[in-house]
Amino acid sequence: MKTPAKRVPGSSRASKVPLAATSALSLTVDRDLQLPIYLQICQRFKTAIAQGHLRPGDRVPAVRGLASELNLARGTVEAAYRLLADEGYLLVRGAAGTVVSPGLINVSGQKALKITPPAQQIPQTEQRAAQPVILPFQMGLPALDAFPRKVWNRIVARRLRSGGVASLSYPDAAGYWPLRERVATYLGLSRGVVCAPEQVFITAGYRAALELVLHTLSRRGDKIWFEDPGYMNARKFLSESGVRLVPVPVDQDGIMVGQGRKLAPDARFALVTPSHQSPLGVTLSLERRMALLAWAGAGKPEERSWIIEDDYDSEYRYQGRPLPALKSLDRDDRVIYTGTFSKVMFPGLRLAYMVAPAGEVARFQRGSAGMRASSPYLFQASVADFMAEGHFSRHLKKMRSLYAHRRAITAQALLQVFGDSMKIDLQAGGMHLLATLQDGEEDTAIAARARQHGLSVHGLSDFCIAAQRPPGLLLSFTNIVDTDHALRVAQQLKRAFD
Amino acid sequence: MKTPAKRVPGSSRASKVPLAATSALSLTVDRDLQLPIYLQICQRFKTAIAQGHLRPGDRVPAVRGLASELNLARGTVEAAYRLLADEGYLLVRGAAGTVVSPGLINVSGQKALKITPPAQQIPQTEQRAAQPVILPFQMGLPALDAFPRKVWNRIVARRLRSGGVASLSYPDAAGYWPLRERVATYLGLSRGVVCAPEQVFITAGYRAALELVLHTLSRRGDKIWFEDPGYMNARKFLSESGVRLVPVPVDQDGIMVGQGRKLAPDARFALVTPSHQSPLGVTLSLERRMALLAWAGAGKPEERSWIIEDDYDSEYRYQGRPLPALKSLDRDDRVIYTGTFSKVMFPGLRLAYMVAPAGEVARFQRGSAGMRASSPYLFQASVADFMAEGHFSRHLKKMRSLYAHRRAITAQALLQVFGDSMKIDLQAGGMHLLATLQDGEEDTAIAARARQHGLSVHGLSDFCIAAQRPPGLLLSFTNIVDTDHALRVAQQLKRAFD
Repeated sequence: MKTPAKRVPGSSRASKVPLAATSALSLTVDRDLQLPIYLQICQRFKTAIAQGHLRPGDRVPAVRGLASELNLARGTVEAAYRLLADEGYLLVRGAAGTVVSPGLINVSGQKALKITPPAQQIPQTEQRAAQPVILPFQMGLPALDAFPRKVWNRIVARRLRSGGVASLSYPDAAGYWPLRERVATYLGLSRGVVCAPEQVFITAGYRAALELVLHTLSRRGDKIWFEDPGYMNARKFLSESGVRLVPVPVDQDGIMVGQGRKLAPDARFALVTPSHQSPLGVTLSLERRMALLAWAGAGKPEERSWIIEDDYDSEYRYQGRPLPALKSLDRDDRVIYTGTFSKVMFPGLRLAYMVAPAGEVARFQRGSAGMRASSPYLFQASVADFMAEGHFSRHLKKMRSLYAHRRAITAQALLQVFGDSMKIDLQAGGMHLLATLQDGEEDTAIAARARQHGLSVHGLSDFCIAAQRPPGLLLSFTNIVDTDHALRVAQQLKRAFD
Repeated sequence: MKTPAKRVPGSSRASKVPLAATSALSLTVDRDLQLPIYLQICQRFKTAIAQGHLRPGDRVPAVRGLASELNLARGTVEAAYRLLADEGYLLVRGAAGTVVSPGLINVSGQKALKITPPAQQIPQTEQRAAQPVILPFQMGLPALDAFPRKVWNRIVARRLRSGGVASLSYPDAAGYWPLRERVATYLGLSRGVVCAPEQVFITAGYRAALELVLHTLSRRGDKIWFEDPGYMNARKFLSESGVRLVPVPVDQDGIMVGQGRKLAPDARFALVTPSHQSPLGVTLSLERRMALLAWAGAGKPEERSWIIEDDYDSEYRYQGRPLPALKSLDRDDRVIYTGTFSKVMFPGLRLAYMVAPAGEVARFQRGSAGMRASSPYLFQASVADFMAEGHFSRHLKKMRSLYAHRRAITAQALLQVFGDSMKIDLQAGGMHLLATLQDGEEDTAIAARARQHGLSVHGLSDFCIAAQRPPGLLLSFTNIVDTDHALRVAQQLKRAFD
């Protein structure tokens, strides 16, 4: 095996070099492909992990050994391992050797709806390659173990059978009509947003909703107020789509509207998270809400601005009642409301929605038709049924108490492990905690080390543009299943500080 | 009913005005919504048609009558009817009154897999609102009646049951790994494209594939060769995404590479349809293929260009064997290959794919991760199974002979109805016919009138930028089920010429 297979120049058959030590992983490297070999190695490791051939905690071959076995430069194998470690698959322990990250939560169990805490999972028997894994503290995910899959599967299967030939054609670009009706009703009852189904547009996730808004209403170079700190993915998308970001500071009452008016009174948009600011978790005060609406509605028609309200996790509030959406106060038709099914149902659906201003429905219809970015009928129809049959609100209610519990045990475990060196701010709602660190600690460096330990942690600084905030870590609690699990991941996190 | 319901100022309850003549349609107009009333009327008509309360051929109330009944201006009802007619739902017959378009093919039959020819369909019993309808001659649709829905439903149901909790999380942005493997194998065997699964990226339709390419490789202002005439939807998308379109003429041998070199030697991209030019249907000659590749690969690395090969319906070829893809000749790694499942399977899937150049895989990985535009796991996994179990190639084979038949009967019927006044060019492949009209006829005007008659027809001129072509109509034959049907729609088309 030490001799590499002879390369046949110009041959169309690839020469395969099986790896002795890793033959169980069916690792092969194809030297005739122009694809960089380190990426080939990465992908094979991911597949082996997903298929259960490599389990969390398993040692992987040393760099030197694997390189010599494959007759590759050590740098190639090192590059592969580094990428795998960056993505949380491998844990580099220095002299102790490199292992598959013990923090990987392998959640492919057939019937067990409980997420198995790390280092205790049973390897998969069925081949199910390259399925996503859930890392401890991973943001933006609801409690996937608690989703009523049986009910959901029944609904999808029924829709599948009754779909008809027309369900195979291009879906309506604006969304499946009965789902638009359901969303309009839900928003009226739960969020105080009065709208017609014609105003509701279904999109393939939140980014697609933002894209539809910009595609329909924005011109290149338009200024947009952006919360600082603010949601990283939105910042990335906006800065790529030709609008000019104007960072506006956030304090305890949410976005500082007065500052925004000073920095860019003529901005065409403001993107805000009023219910539960992303990432600080504060709520936009009533006074600020009125000031924001007044700013957007002032002046001649062509001088007015649009407010994009991202109401991503407003459903989760553990103290007091959910606040009505900013849109419910919108007398001048300036607010574009966006919400998502990723947080209440699950992100694999790839479904979100936006509510167009009543006066702009025809433009948004043309915009969505032009984008040709519709979502499959099957899931849209199934979500409509899920809502119509009451499962949506039942699940939401169940999750509110589950998250209150998971939040409490996570906070408790962090306090127990970190003591006074970490301050945990329990906000009124949301799906993550903000853990404030001691002055002088570097949150992004700690977060990077935590990721090397197989945890999915973000430093608050990464969400800041110009803002100066005390260092902090953003930690989701939604998939922390019990006290043991919470303690274990808190201890893992502690090691990232050493 | 002549007295409108009294409006209560400031009331949050909407005042509903039921329509006497259309009460069976549950038509209501909500005067308290800011949504334009004509759009409310439109949507209610569409729902009534989709639910079978209004059937093809049914007369709708006269504008004057409906306006007076609703106490609306006649212009409001006229605007609604005009939009409905533009979209093919209504047929305005002047003095003979307005009817629901008899051309609407209502394809929601439960078990009947046959598409019912127009004016013969059975109204739906089950409520299934706002499902898409298939219009005669509609481009870009495969034969939806012939898709093996039973097999497909079985596969999807199985994947649904075995999905596991991880299937609820964010899908891999680059696509579901086993599907990427299947596509790589398929392309190798069927299209002569040798690539690794790592090079294959799954996207939510063709537009998303183009978006991924531009997002990853383009800079604002980059020039792109674009076939003239060329695919309208791509032209629209490209002109919105900040690249500069350079129309390059097409002749019998495909895109005129020499002209492109004269017009924009420094273009960074060329978007081409080599197998079956869209819309002319010609094949790019071998000489032109080599010239195109030579142009793209010439110069220093930073001077080279990318060729985007859109291989959208290459699978359908009725004379001779399918030609290998342009990508199969690509020695310099300059071709980005794109294909779609919309034509061989069905467009409601919203799945396409692209093959990244081997040297650019890491960039495309970052690009796809940044776009967060992944597709639901369920359909990706099901398509992988559909391919693995041989259904994909079986269906493709079946469709080749079905389309050859449908093409023949459609061409025959057109000849019978139009005689010498229309010339039909049977190209080697594809899913539509190009019917050349007599000089001086205005194809776009005829196509617009045909749409008023409930047919989905495009004029060739709409695909031209600077190109001067004889007038022509683009007519899909894939959903023309038998000789009777073909004759009926040909006669309907004839009326658009009068």
